[in-house]
Amino acid sequence: MISQRLEQQMAFIIEVDKIKQIYRRNYVIGTDRHETDAEHSWHLAIMAVLLSEHVTGYPVDILKIIKMVLIHDIVEIDAGDTYCFDAQAGMDKEARERTAADRLFGLLPLDQAQEMRALWEEFEQRVSPEARLADALDRLQPLVLHYKTEGKSWRLNNIVSAQVRERNKRTKEIAAELGQLVEQIIQDSIARGYLRESK
Amino acid sequence: MISQRLEQQMAFIIEVDKIKQIYRRNYVIGTDRHETDAEHSWHLAIMAVLLSEHVTGYPVDILKIIKMVLIHDIVEIDAGDTYCFDAQAGMDKEARERTAADRLFGLLPLDQAQEMRALWEEFEQRVSPEARLADALDRLQPLVLHYKTEGKSWRLNNIVSAQVRERNKRTKEIAAELGQLVEQIIQDSIARGYLRESK
Ligand SMILES: [Ca+2]
Repeated sequence: MISQRLEQQMAFIIEVDKIKQIYRRNYVIGTDRHETDAEHSWHLAIMAVLLSEHVTGYPVDILKIIKMVLIHDIVEIDAGDTYCFDAQAGMDKEARERTAADRLFGLLPLDQAQEMRALWEEFEQRVSPEARLADALDRLQPLVLHYKTEGKSWRLNNIVSAQVRERNKRTKEIAAELGQLVEQIIQDSIARGYLRESK
Repeated sequence: MISQRLEQQMAFIIEVDKIKQIYRRNYVIGTDRHETDAEHSWHLAIMAVLLSEHVTGYPVDILKIIKMVLIHDIVEIDAGDTYCFDAQAGMDKEARERTAADRLFGLLPLDQAQEMRALWEEFEQRVSPEARLADALDRLQPLVLHYKTEGKSWRLNNIVSAQVRERNKRTKEIAAELGQLVEQIIQDSIARGYLRESK
C-alpha cells in the first residue's frame, strides 16, 4: 500500500492531465491546430530555462520561475481559458480562478498545496522579479506563435498593434533586451501584414 | 537590434515548437486523442516537482531533473517517437537521436548548447540519481495514462503485464515507494481487465 501522501500527489497529477484539454487562441506553428495549455506551459518552462539570464538588475531564482510557469494555468481546468483581449470575460476571471485554485491545489498534501498556491498567487500579483519575468514570458510566447503563424489569430480576432503593444509593455522593465525583441516582432508583423497598425 | 545570443535562443525556442506535433502512443485521459511530446514533457516536469522527494538514499538536484525532463524528447523532432515496445525501431534509435541532438541543441549559444546536450546525455545514460528518477518518471507517466484510459493503448498493441513490469522494473531502485505504486497500478490493471496477464 502506498502512503496517503503519495495518493494525494497522484490525485493531483491525474487531475491536472485535464490541462491538455484546454485549448488556447493561438495556433501551433505550421498547423491549423490550437495549442493546449499543457503545451504552452512546457514552452514557457523551456523559455524560463534559456531566457532568465536576460532579467536586468535583479538576481532571480530560476527554479521558482519554472515552477511558476508550469502551474500558472492549472486553474483554467475549472475556470477555462480567458482570452486576453476579452474584457467581458475578464471581469469575473479572478473569482473563478481563485475557487479553482482552492480545489485543485487542495488535492495535494498540505505543504505542497501551500507551496503551489503561494507560487500561483505570486505569479498573479506580478510584483516579484520571478513573477514579472514569468508574466513577460507568458505574453512573449503567444506573441512569437502569432508572428510565426502569420498573425492568423490576430486577424481572426481583429487585433491591432496598439493592443499587442499594450499587452507587452512591461516586458522591457524586467528584461530590457526581451523588450526590444517584442518591439522588433511587432514592427516586423506590421511590415509583413500579419498585424494591422492602429492609427 | 537584438543580440546574436538572443537570436540563437529564439531560433531554438521556435524550432522546438515542433515537439507539439510529435504524437505518442498513449491517450490523454478522457479523450480519444494521443498525447503530444510537449504535453508529456510538461506532465513529467510537474511530477518531478512533486515526486522528487521520494528518491531514497541520494540527495537530488530538482532543477536538474526538471530541465532534463523538459528537454529529454526534443530529439524526437528529427528522430520521431520510437514506441517503447518496438524492438525493431529501437535498433537505430540511438544514432538517429544523436544526430538530432547535434542539430537541435546546436541552434543555441555554445554554453547553453553544451549544458542542454550534457543534460540529454546524462538522461540517456541513466546513471546519476537525477537521470534515474527522470527515467522512472518517463515510464511512470505513460503507465498512469494507460491505467486511466482503461488500457486502451495496451490492448491495441497486444501488450502483456510482463512487458510493463520489465519496463518499470528499475523504479523501485531509485524510489522505493514509486516502485510500490507501479506494482499497485499493474495489479489493479490486470484485475480490471485493462492489461492481459502473461503466464
Ligand atoms: Ca520518448
